[in-house]
Amino acid sequence: MIEYPEYIQRAINAFSKLPGIGYKTAVRLTMNMIGREIKDVEDFCSDILNSKKELRYCSKCKNFSEDDLCFVCMDKGRDHSTICVVQDVKDLYAFEKTRTYRGVYYVLHGVITPIKGIGPSDIGIDFLEERVKSENLKEIILATSPTLEGEATSIYLSKLFNNGNIKVTRLAYGIPLGSDLEYVDEITLGRALNSRMQI
Amino acid sequence: MIEYPEYIQRAINAFSKLPGIGYKTAVRLTMNMIGREIKDVEDFCSDILNSKKELRYCSKCKNFSEDDLCFVCMDKGRDHSTICVVQDVKDLYAFEKTRTYRGVYYVLHGVITPIKGIGPSDIGIDFLEERVKSENLKEIILATSPTLEGEATSIYLSKLFNNGNIKVTRLAYGIPLGSDLEYVDEITLGRALNSRMQI
Repeated sequence: MIEYPEYIQRAINAFSKLPGIGYKTAVRLTMNMIGREIKDVEDFCSDILNSKKELRYCSKCKNFSEDDLCFVCMDKGRDHSTICVVQDVKDLYAFEKTRTYRGVYYVLHGVITPIKGIGPSDIGIDFLEERVKSENLKEIILATSPTLEGEATSIYLSKLFNNGNIKVTRLAYGIPLGSDLEYVDEITLGRALNSRMQI
Repeated sequence: MIEYPEYIQRAINAFSKLPGIGYKTAVRLTMNMIGREIKDVEDFCSDILNSKKELRYCSKCKNFSEDDLCFVCMDKGRDHSTICVVQDVKDLYAFEKTRTYRGVYYVLHGVITPIKGIGPSDIGIDFLEERVKSENLKEIILATSPTLEGEATSIYLSKLFNNGNIKVTRLAYGIPLGSDLEYVDEITLGRALNSRMQI
């Protein structure tokens, strides 16, 4: 295979390592970078680097934050007795965008994946357990993704916290709004049928 | 719209400006970066920055190069009397990958686009003209992309150089190998019919 000059090749390789970026896209991105003004490329790099350097985890919910507490945990107007457990910061922002949730969060930054050696303590469940013990909580909402590992993590958490004092809930399964029934997979449709509600 | 903390938002915006990267992908790429080790992010940034810093244009053909002349122009074994005019460095590498072309190149880094104010001198056609005058060339192959602007640039160049002394050629139009005739657009199919060859 024809290689690009070393410096170009390195940039291509760097872009290729990003999720969802294939070799051809990486070449296009690299050419785009090279075609820019040097100042512009420097800005790009410092923006990326700062997002990593200047961020830390919120000491309470592990959301990304610039301060010790994140904007959710700092908000006195929110319901701090309801915790929504998500597996990713992206998911936290997905809930924020709904503008319907007024509780707080806990971000796992992963799910229990025994095959990769990721156990409960690796995703901070021990830390969550302490928080649940020390705070006077009313409800824990389990909102891990409906994948195999996400479900397993959800089951693990429900067993851990379902001791009668706290209400443990999970997101409703069902058909997404605006979808065509024909294209909804059979498991989702089956669950939607089982969880049908009277109108 | 819910905004991410400033530093994350900046990184997302930086990624969004890349060609073909939408907002959601930019968020995913940013989260990927933040999830990495700091050393890894620094390497990523220096790889991108160096690809810009350490490169210059080959003084003869405007290919990207680390030295004054690029690897093609430096190669004494190639046919320096045949120039293939491409609009992009990516295209140069596309030809190199075919391993059938043994001539040299000239990279325009663009096409004539009057609506954006890009004229012949903006894409170095004046420089190419001087090179054509000073060197003893046999053939100029016009290999701009078959878009409106690419074709217009090709026609401009063919009028400029087609003075009897040099052979000016363009790439063959026709059906791509492995394609299904049903899906080939009508203009391409029409040209393939017009340019049919006896077997």
